[in-house]
Amino acid sequence: MNKNVYTLYLVTDRELMSCDTIEQSVEQAITGGATVVQLREKNATSREFYELAVRVKRITEPCQVPLIINDRIDICLAAGADGVHLGQKDIPCDAARRILGSEKIIGVSAATPEEAAKAQRDGADYLGVGAVFSTSTKTDTRPVTLEIIRKIRAAVTIPFVVIGGINSENIGILKGLGINGAAVVSAVVAQPDIEAAARKMRAAVEEII
Amino acid sequence: MNKNVYTLYLVTDRELMSCDTIEQSVEQAITGGATVVQLREKNATSREFYELAVRVKRITEPCQVPLIINDRIDICLAAGADGVHLGQKDIPCDAARRILGSEKIIGVSAATPEEAAKAQRDGADYLGVGAVFSTSTKTDTRPVTLEIIRKIRAAVTIPFVVIGGINSENIGILKGLGINGAAVVSAVVAQPDIEAAARKMRAAVEEII
Repeated sequence: MNKNVYTLYLVTDRELMSCDTIEQSVEQAITGGATVVQLREKNATSREFYELAVRVKRITEPCQVPLIINDRIDICLAAGADGVHLGQKDIPCDAARRILGSEKIIGVSAATPEEAAKAQRDGADYLGVGAVFSTSTKTDTRPVTLEIIRKIRAAVTIPFVVIGGINSENIGILKGLGINGAAVVSAVVAQPDIEAAARKMRAAVEEII
Repeated sequence: MNKNVYTLYLVTDRELMSCDTIEQSVEQAITGGATVVQLREKNATSREFYELAVRVKRITEPCQVPLIINDRIDICLAAGADGVHLGQKDIPCDAARRILGSEKIIGVSAATPEEAAKAQRDGADYLGVGAVFSTSTKTDTRPVTLEIIRKIRAAVTIPFVVIGGINSENIGILKGLGINGAAVVSAVVAQPDIEAAARKMRAAVEEII
């Protein structure tokens, strides 16, 4: 089994999840094999996001699964999460690194080799590369081709996960590109049996990394 | 002249301002007598908010006017601002204090003596008390009566500013309540001459504190 922490990168989604609470979706996905969890909240108040992060941290920590907070460095610090994921419209990576120090994980979304190389220079620990396939989860994504993934792999030495519409059916095409894992939303949290979906997805990712 | 830093507390508003940029509104308000500036952005991305904060800090710092960031502790840290203002739906004051240390200013919105006392216990440096008058700037405010302001004054020793629909015409009624300043949005930034409006408002506040 691959020990890479990025193998199955779960991104939460309140609207898409098949269960009642974010906590349930995270717990079931980890049982099924998720290796890292990103908490993404689009409409929560800062207080709600903070309190949710505190609750989810109680689930991820005993499992030694890193908890990553989308965008909000302050929520990460306040809740004692393990890191943040920054899009190109979030606080710049170098500024985030100054705030977070060297211990916290910082991931950056990249859709071009230039963005990838800059993120690595600015102190990113990993990249989220996509959108690989079209996705209903995010509407503002830019398409990333296999050629771009190859160029990003050549441009950086840090690990990266691919993201965007990935499921156990379509992931095969990504084999041999040197990717370190896959980030999934719908393919896990929107399935009727989240644990089984995570298990299936984990096996599918292990085949191609 | 009153040396209290909270005397004329300017809150920015992109939609209401009479000039082209937030920077212009801040510069003109400071020239007119604003003693502290809170940057409030409702719809900006984190990147936009951060970059704006960096630009505004270049205006406030040479004037020794503290720059307070609404809600976002991470933007405060990344931009080197002087503090944050936290509503009751933002990250709790005690958690914010742990992140920010003792040097940064933390303000908390309070509409009851209980919220005020809790904020002081949790490490707040000042309070924003309101809404004193009805206001079009915020729709989710709770009304605060003169009796509540008296009770809040009795409940805490830290300074507080009143907020909510305050202008140079209606502020007189707040005299003798032990308030330390007034926070204004429309009464300054929405006026055709922001500098003159700030000057007028500053004089009106000096009369009642």
